[in-house]
Amino acid sequence: MSYGRVTIPGEENYYNETMAVARRWKADAIRDCDGTKLDDELKQSELKIYNAYFPTRAQNQFIREHMEECPQIYLMSKRTLATRSKLTIAFMDEYYQKQLVPNYHDDPAKYWEVIDRTDGTVVPKENWSLDQEENCVTISDAALFHEYTVSFLAYIIWDPVEMYNHLTNDWGDKEHEIPFDALQPHSHEFILKTMKEWLQDNPEIDVVRFTTFFYQFTLVFNQYGKEKFVDWFGYGASVSPRMLKRFEKKYGYAMRAEDFVDEGYYNSAFRVPSASLKKYMDLVQDFVTGMVRELTDLVHESGKEAMMFLGDQWIGTEPYGKYAQRMNLDAVVGSVGDGTTLRMISDIPNVKYTEGRFLPYFFPDTFYEGNDPSIEARANWVQARRAILRSPIERMGYGGYLSLADKFPKFVDTVAEITEEFRGIHDNMQGTRAYCGLKVAILNHWGKLRTWQAFTVAHALYCKEAYSYYGILESLSGMNVEVEFISFDDVLENGIDESIDVIINAGAAGTAFSGGDIWSQTRLSEILTAWVMNGGGLIGVGEPSAVDFQGRFFQLASILGVDEERGFSLSTDKYFKTMSDRHFITDGIEYFDFGETVNSVYALDEATEILEYSNDEVHLAARAVGAGRTVYIAGLPFSFSNARLLMRSLYFAAHKEEEMLNGYSENINCEASLYPDVSKYCIVNNSDEQQETKVHFGGQVINLTLQPYESIWGDMNVGIN
Amino acid sequence: MSYGRVTIPGEENYYNETMAVARRWKADAIRDCDGTKLDDELKQSELKIYNAYFPTRAQNQFIREHMEECPQIYLMSKRTLATRSKLTIAFMDEYYQKQLVPNYHDDPAKYWEVIDRTDGTVVPKENWSLDQEENCVTISDAALFHEYTVSFLAYIIWDPVEMYNHLTNDWGDKEHEIPFDALQPHSHEFILKTMKEWLQDNPEIDVVRFTTFFYQFTLVFNQYGKEKFVDWFGYGASVSPRMLKRFEKKYGYAMRAEDFVDEGYYNSAFRVPSASLKKYMDLVQDFVTGMVRELTDLVHESGKEAMMFLGDQWIGTEPYGKYAQRMNLDAVVGSVGDGTTLRMISDIPNVKYTEGRFLPYFFPDTFYEGNDPSIEARANWVQARRAILRSPIERMGYGGYLSLADKFPKFVDTVAEITEEFRGIHDNMQGTRAYCGLKVAILNHWGKLRTWQAFTVAHALYCKEAYSYYGILESLSGMNVEVEFISFDDVLENGIDESIDVIINAGAAGTAFSGGDIWSQTRLSEILTAWVMNGGGLIGVGEPSAVDFQGRFFQLASILGVDEERGFSLSTDKYFKTMSDRHFITDGIEYFDFGETVNSVYALDEATEILEYSNDEVHLAARAVGAGRTVYIAGLPFSFSNARLLMRSLYFAAHKEEEMLNGYSENINCEASLYPDVSKYCIVNNSDEQQETKVHFGGQVINLTLQPYESIWGDMNVGIN
Repeated sequence: MSYGRVTIPGEENYYNETMAVARRWKADAIRDCDGTKLDDELKQSELKIYNAYFPTRAQNQFIREHMEECPQIYLMSKRTLATRSKLTIAFMDEYYQKQLVPNYHDDPAKYWEVIDRTDGTVVPKENWSLDQEENCVTISDAALFHEYTVSFLAYIIWDPVEMYNHLTNDWGDKEHEIPFDALQPHSHEFILKTMKEWLQDNPEIDVVRFTTFFYQFTLVFNQYGKEKFVDWFGYGASVSPRMLKRFEKKYGYAMRAEDFVDEGYYNSAFRVPSASLKKYMDLVQDFVTGMVRELTDLVHESGKEAMMFLGDQWIGTEPYGKYAQRMNLDAVVGSVGDGTTLRMISDIPNVKYTEGRFLPYFFPDTFYEGNDPSIEARANWVQARRAILRSPIERMGYGGYLSLADKFPKFVDTVAEITEEFRGIHDNMQGTRAYCGLKVAILNHWGKLRTWQAFTVAHALYCKEAYSYYGILESLSGMNVEVEFISFDDVLENGIDESIDVIINAGAAGTAFSGGDIWSQTRLSEILTAWVMNGGGLIGVGEPSAVDFQGRFFQLASILGVDEERGFSLSTDKYFKTMSDRHFITDGIEYFDFGETVNSVYALDEATEILEYSNDEVHLAARAVGAGRTVYIAGLPFSFSNARLLMRSLYFAAHKEEEMLNGYSENINCEASLYPDVSKYCIVNNSDEQQETKVHFGGQVINLTLQPYESIWGDMNVGIN
Repeated sequence: MSYGRVTIPGEENYYNETMAVARRWKADAIRDCDGTKLDDELKQSELKIYNAYFPTRAQNQFIREHMEECPQIYLMSKRTLATRSKLTIAFMDEYYQKQLVPNYHDDPAKYWEVIDRTDGTVVPKENWSLDQEENCVTISDAALFHEYTVSFLAYIIWDPVEMYNHLTNDWGDKEHEIPFDALQPHSHEFILKTMKEWLQDNPEIDVVRFTTFFYQFTLVFNQYGKEKFVDWFGYGASVSPRMLKRFEKKYGYAMRAEDFVDEGYYNSAFRVPSASLKKYMDLVQDFVTGMVRELTDLVHESGKEAMMFLGDQWIGTEPYGKYAQRMNLDAVVGSVGDGTTLRMISDIPNVKYTEGRFLPYFFPDTFYEGNDPSIEARANWVQARRAILRSPIERMGYGGYLSLADKFPKFVDTVAEITEEFRGIHDNMQGTRAYCGLKVAILNHWGKLRTWQAFTVAHALYCKEAYSYYGILESLSGMNVEVEFISFDDVLENGIDESIDVIINAGAAGTAFSGGDIWSQTRLSEILTAWVMNGGGLIGVGEPSAVDFQGRFFQLASILGVDEERGFSLSTDKYFKTMSDRHFITDGIEYFDFGETVNSVYALDEATEILEYSNDEVHLAARAVGAGRTVYIAGLPFSFSNARLLMRSLYFAAHKEEEMLNGYSENINCEASLYPDVSKYCIVNNSDEQQETKVHFGGQVINLTLQPYESIWGDMNVGIN
């Protein structure tokens, strides 16, 4: 077995113990963390040294002299009801004044907007006035019983990540780290100068671990110092009059405050992105990736590697975006919450390697007496393992206080096993690709840009309105299919690539994932209908292609064979309620869980095969359409049973039922991967119980017993169809 | 006790037995039914004689000579996909050809429309052609992979009610009754002539029971002879080129086929009515009520009474409409399914009396050996009784074969008890009004016109998408509150009447009941917000005021204190989840059932009192808003517990908690009504079990034990606040 591929956290005055753990886990790299530093002894060790680097914070001396270069954000005040024609709005009322201060430096009359939210009109500038002392706007002639808001530019004067740690860990009067905006002239110069100095001063560092670059994802706190708004994808904190001027220069028109405030939704990734937003994001990416390159060039000149942390100030880097290659990064490291986040890291193109930071973090919230952190470690590993078997990260690691973890011998043992298993995967795969029986494309407004990032509010966190869709990604992350993310624009501009077997459109009506109004554009339904009629496979989950238009809610209802009752066609008899006795899709699946599901979906006619019907609703259906096939699923929270349901649906929709058996475990708790280029297979048991299973390799079947969580590698002596 | 108020069905050769039942039930009237006739002996009895009269059917000899005067309807073909540019649509494919034939008499090029349902455009007439032999339309240059429909005029050649009975009862080759359209010249003349003759020929008839007039509610059958579309409120079958010409003459523009076809929804009562539809309905009512008057004048001239059956060809009569008085009806009779349908009959203004036909109908489907029809009779009675106690019908009756019912002595006994209890109500009430502690208005697009007719597809039938709203009406039907139905137009034109204490807006988003796009009209929210701020009570049920606009889904969210998460604000933290410990609204209510409920409703801030929170959702909440109060309820299927919940919500919203105790049973299975003008009260037990309860009369409380279904009358010796 090989050595390495593992990064451990280091801390001061813990050299011998650290080296013992390193040997135990066969680690070949060490990193500092929030709250830990590497001392000289560690830096002199044979381990590769990572050092976190924060380009845009922790330099208060500099930024205090240029507070107009703090990052900015458009905020919307609370909605305030006019009960008299003179209405005063205290627009900072619901914001944390330690994080945010209004920008009075750039002309509010130019950059701010006061909006009547009852009728959507903008209040003319001459009808409102600003009191900078009281942070109030007063409207002189408000319409009675209308609600008004103020959209204003604010400076972010406390780095949100440091603020979060500061407040969470009660750091008291520790000085707040003030962030700065790399686009602004002094900051730009300062960042480059500081980087150069730091590289000179730190010759022993091998890897500069950027944590991260310039623009924080949107994280706004309320008047109580609690999280008010969080959007891991949000570009909100990248705005500034300077950026807006760039926009105007490039595109020939100016963006409005409302383009950012977006009725208070702040362009959440669930919102259908406006044309202006897409242009703005492009502009930010162009700037960010260009400036990242200035830094990575310096790093490379100094003989080090440049690694980016996928999070915090990652906005504008968009590792799947069209400018990403320009950054010339050596590596990306990110936190692994599950299979989806694993793939989000491991599939990133244009880097030499990727690394996953596994859970748990070595912090007292998990590592306390009486708790067994090895359980979380094992669960995290097994959830990620099936994704690694499809598309491996090159390295793995942990973070936090090693001295704390070291007090839990069972945990140290477990991680030793996990790291060994991880290296074993690489030893077996030898850099070859896992077998994929078909190619599926997830179709939404974001497409490739947000590969493995759909249905996400904040990284691997549960969300009631998203988990029934997120399960699709989690299922796919470890499935023997190739996955790609395509946008409606891709389809409209270039049609559907012939390599695609199945397209999935999933999401709640009106969201960027389902598509919203774009479905009333003729071309999109035309293309998809033609494609399915000609043999393509289509899977709709939840409210696919949903918009009320011309008597349908699902605009692809005719090919999906189902539509959602909106209350308008209650007078029409719905006759089709009989479930098919047996079907390829449901074979071997014992129970169904459609999560939050969708109410009142009905089958259009007898050509729709109903596979699950309960509560007077269709939750699962299939249909032959011309030469193609479609499947409808009401919701797909992640479970191994649902992963199986989706896999069978995909192979069915693709007319590739035979191909599914190239590495197929009959027991749904187990999964099989094939590596044709090295003639190997791997069977994993995803459960914490012993499992028996029959595994198919094409026509051949083997019987296996797997211990809890076990993975078994073997040599294939059978060909793959 | 008094005698009478009861109508029984009669049949031939059953005189003595009939008269025995009549005496037993103290009946004072007798009627014929579908399938029964009264013989001379019965007609000579002391009983009042009702005779069913069908003005527009059962006259095949006449109509066969004028088949172009059959009623007509606009139908939409199935949606047909164009896979080649030449597309043929067999537009009759999904229709029952024994009921419907295309109207080729009036120019299809003028009256029909071919529509591209994928983009919503109308295909120019020159691009489609008609094959009358094959009932096909061929489009010459269809857009590939677009769906097309044909909207065509069809004659209704089989009376839908007779058709239903014919098919249901397997009447084989019995001649089909062909309906005719009273607007057409020959039919008009024929109807009047026939009526005159019939009145002359039937001097012994006391009451002409019109069953009914001219236009059947929409009832369309499919190619298999099964119901395809049913809308008890639909004006679809009132159309004809003659009616369309009247429309054009009156309003100065022509209606299109699509005004009727409505994307295939056919202007269901759940659809927000278009301005043209409202005008058209007005036109039909104007004609229908005028022509009804011609008939009732003839009836009155002959010394008889004119009674209308509320159903079948009732379209255009609209007993709550502005032309209804013109009909000069003596009475309306309708089928009683529950409290709501009872009130729909009993509240009809401008008639001398109303009559309810109770269940079960004396037919073999209920009256068969081994079944106990008295159970259904009792259940039907008790469900209606609480509504009768608020607003009584003057008469009750039954229908079907009396000789069949006569074989079930327990049933005969039960009806004897029911009829006696019914007369007792009248004896006690003496025509006075029941006490109402407040006035509630149901606000929707239909308003007064559809009094007690909201949330209904077909009369008292269960509907998954409606029952969680229909329960509001059913609860109110027997509640000690005054109920009125108002429309958005009323509010926009006249504001809110000062007699109203509470307004309810309820329904699914986008429907005529919730309101749809009208909520993006500023004035409506302004008026309601002002009204609540000034002390009004507002209750929202389900998706009140829902339309996506300016960052809200519920446009009244700010006053309701809750909004529905649409997936756009997932990034905003929702902190308010704590239920209030105790609240007036939930006092004494032990469990909650919100029916189909609404997912993902959340409280806006701490000013919203959350009364029920589960599944990460608010289902019940209250809020003080200025001088007013609001309540949100996620759904309200009918149950005695929910009736209580609504009652408490109403009295809370109205700030009339004290007034609620004027006739209030602590046990929710019992209800109390007060009759101040005659100083009486009535306490009913709605359950089939003995109940103990404390009943409040203002400050005074009495303890009572009630037997199953019992009602107890007493004299009040206490005043009412």
